[in-house]
Amino acid sequence: MSSVRIGIVGIGNMGTSHAKYIAAGEVAGAELAAVCDISTDRLRWAKEQFGEKLHTFETVDAMLDSGTVDAIMICNLHFDHPGTSMKAFQRGIHVLCEKPAGVYTKQVREMNEAADASDVRFAMMFNQRTNPLYIKLKDLIDSGELGEIRRTNWIITTWYRTQSYYDSGSWRATWAGEGGGVLLNQCPHQLDLWQWTIGMLPTRVRAFCAFGKYRDIEVEDEVTAYVEYPNGATGVFITTTGETPGTNRFEITGDRGKIVVEDNKLTFWRLRVPEPEFNQKAKAGFGQPECWKFDVPVGTAPHGHKTVTQNWVDSIRKGTPLVAPGQEGIRGLSLSNAMYLSAWTDDWAELPLDEDRFHELLQQRIATSRFKK
Amino acid sequence: MSSVRIGIVGIGNMGTSHAKYIAAGEVAGAELAAVCDISTDRLRWAKEQFGEKLHTFETVDAMLDSGTVDAIMICNLHFDHPGTSMKAFQRGIHVLCEKPAGVYTKQVREMNEAADASDVRFAMMFNQRTNPLYIKLKDLIDSGELGEIRRTNWIITTWYRTQSYYDSGSWRATWAGEGGGVLLNQCPHQLDLWQWTIGMLPTRVRAFCAFGKYRDIEVEDEVTAYVEYPNGATGVFITTTGETPGTNRFEITGDRGKIVVEDNKLTFWRLRVPEPEFNQKAKAGFGQPECWKFDVPVGTAPHGHKTVTQNWVDSIRKGTPLVAPGQEGIRGLSLSNAMYLSAWTDDWAELPLDEDRFHELLQQRIATSRFKK
Repeated sequence: MSSVRIGIVGIGNMGTSHAKYIAAGEVAGAELAAVCDISTDRLRWAKEQFGEKLHTFETVDAMLDSGTVDAIMICNLHFDHPGTSMKAFQRGIHVLCEKPAGVYTKQVREMNEAADASDVRFAMMFNQRTNPLYIKLKDLIDSGELGEIRRTNWIITTWYRTQSYYDSGSWRATWAGEGGGVLLNQCPHQLDLWQWTIGMLPTRVRAFCAFGKYRDIEVEDEVTAYVEYPNGATGVFITTTGETPGTNRFEITGDRGKIVVEDNKLTFWRLRVPEPEFNQKAKAGFGQPECWKFDVPVGTAPHGHKTVTQNWVDSIRKGTPLVAPGQEGIRGLSLSNAMYLSAWTDDWAELPLDEDRFHELLQQRIATSRFKK
Repeated sequence: MSSVRIGIVGIGNMGTSHAKYIAAGEVAGAELAAVCDISTDRLRWAKEQFGEKLHTFETVDAMLDSGTVDAIMICNLHFDHPGTSMKAFQRGIHVLCEKPAGVYTKQVREMNEAADASDVRFAMMFNQRTNPLYIKLKDLIDSGELGEIRRTNWIITTWYRTQSYYDSGSWRATWAGEGGGVLLNQCPHQLDLWQWTIGMLPTRVRAFCAFGKYRDIEVEDEVTAYVEYPNGATGVFITTTGETPGTNRFEITGDRGKIVVEDNKLTFWRLRVPEPEFNQKAKAGFGQPECWKFDVPVGTAPHGHKTVTQNWVDSIRKGTPLVAPGQEGIRGLSLSNAMYLSAWTDDWAELPLDEDRFHELLQQRIATSRFKK
C-alpha cells in the first residue's frame, strides 16, 4: 500500500503536535494530507507551517468527503470524538482518536459498535501503553510473576493546574464544554493503564469527588475512588489538580509479592513462595515468606505519541496489531463515568454502568453549565 | 517521692515484656512489685523469674486492695481495659494502659470521665508517639512548615499474620474475644498517630472492611477507609494482615508541600511559596511553584515502650507532662469504631460517633461469635 494520507481534525495543541512529526516524515508510510478546524486563522497558520499543498477544511464532513484523506486523527473537543469517529467509519476512513474516547459510555458504545461493523483500523491515542514501565508491569502480571492480584493503589496527583490554566478557555472545566475535570482531561491515561496492566475492571466503585474545591471551576478537581474487582481484590485511585509537586505512585500487590512503579522505576518485592502456600505451612505466628527486593530492568523501547501513530499506520498498511484498539477506550471511560455516578448519587456505582442514569445526570449538569455552546 | 511500686495486670506477651525491663531496674524510680493473672502457672513462672518478693494475685481486685502497688500497667484483654482502669482510679492507683483503650468508645468515655474525676496519672502505651519520625512530623505540622493540611494517606499493610497466629488462641480474631481484627489489634498505633500528628479527627468516615477474607477469622483482615476533615482535607487509610512484605507509607500534603514517612525516613517536598499564593499570581497555565526535596533529620531520642513507662513514672513522681494521656486513647478508637460502623451499615459514619448504634451492632456480633467467655 502506498503512503497513508492523514487528516488532522482540530489543529489545536495536540493536533499541531501530531501534524508536526507527520509533516517532518517521522512516521514511516504516512503523510500529512489535510487539516480541518473551525478557526480559519488556524487553517491559514497550518498552510504557512506545512506548505500550500496541505488541504484545509472548515468542517469534518468536507474533509471526509474530499477524497484527500485515507485516515484521520481526531483532536477536537471531547464531546465530538464519537460523532467524528462514526462519520469516518461510514466512509471507510481509518481513525486514531485522542483520549478520552468520549464523555459518556453510552455514546462511546455506539461508536464502538459502528467501528465493529466497519472495516477501518480504529485506535486510541493511549501513548502511555508504549511506556516501557507499564509494558513491563503488564508483562509481569500477565505472565503470573506477581500471582493473583489482591490490591491496586494509584496516587496520581501530579496534574497541578492553576486558575490561569482554567481561565485560558471558557469551555475549560465546564460540564457543557468538557464534560468533566481531572478524570476526563488529565487521567484518561492512568485510568486506561490501571485496567490494562492488571487486565480487570472492577465490579463496583465508590468514589468521592470534590467539584471546584481548589479552583473556580464546575467540574471535579479532587477524587478518591475505592473499587472492588471480580476476584475479590480491592483498589484505590486518588487524583487532583490542586496539589504540587504531587505523587505518581502505582502499587500493585499480588500473592507473589508487590510491585511499585514510581520515579521511573519498577520495584518488585518478590516472594520466594506464594503467600497462600507459606500461610498453609506456617507453624509460627509471626513468620513471613522470604522476600527479594529488586529493580526490574524495563528497557528503552521507542514510546510516546509518535510510536502509537506509527503503530496505527503500520496496522493500516500491514495489518500490525494495534497497541490500543479504539474499542478499548470505553474501559477507562467507564471507570471515570462510574466515579462521577457514585459521587453524584453518594452511593455505589456498579459495573457494567447504568449508562442511561449517568447520561441523565450528566445532562442535568450540562443544562446548568455556565458554558453555552 | 520514693520508688513507684508497679503491678502488672496480665503477665502474657506484653505484660512479661514490661515486667522484665522494670525488674531489671531500667525505669528510674520504679520497681516491679506485683503481678496478677488468671493463670496460676503464669504467676508461678513470674515468681521464679522475678524473685520470691514479688507479690502475685489471681484477681485485679485482690492486687488493687493489697496495698502493694501504687500504679498498674494494664495488659489484659482489650474488653477489660476500661473496667480495670476504673477499678484503679477508684482506689487512687495510677494507670498505664496497653492499647487499645478499649473496644468501644461508649465504655472508654466512661473510663475517661472516671479518670478526669480522679487524681491519678493515666497514660496510654502509645509508644510510637516517642518515635523520632512521628515527633518530627508532628513538629513540622504544628509549626506550620507544611501549611494547611490537604490530604493524608497511610498505607500500613506490614501486619502480616498467618492462620497459625490466629489459631494460637481461641479468643483471637473473634468478636467476643477481641472485639475486632487488624484495626483493633495491629493498627491502634497508626490510628493514634494519624490523628495526633495532624491534630485533627475527621468529621465523617466511609470505610470498606473485609471480614475473614484472607484467614478463617470472624473479624476484619482488610480495610480501606476514606475520611473527610473539618477543614475540607481528605484522607485514606489502608491496612491488612493478609499481605507481605506490605507497605508502611504515610503521605501528608499541605499547601506548603508534601511529606512522606517511609523506610525510616522523613522526606519533605517543600514549596518555596505556598501553593495558593503561587496560584493567585500565576499567569501561565502549566507552571508550578519551586519545590525543594530533602530528607529531614529526625534525631535519635530514646523511644519505645520503656520510654513511655519512664514518662508515666516521671509524671507520677515529678509531674512531668504525659506523652500519651490516657484520655486520648479514645481518639484513635473512635476512628476504628467509625470504620466498623460505616462498613456494617454500608454508609457514612459521622464523628462524633453514634456510640449507642455502634455498641448495639457490636453486641449482635458478639452474641453470635464462636468464642464463648
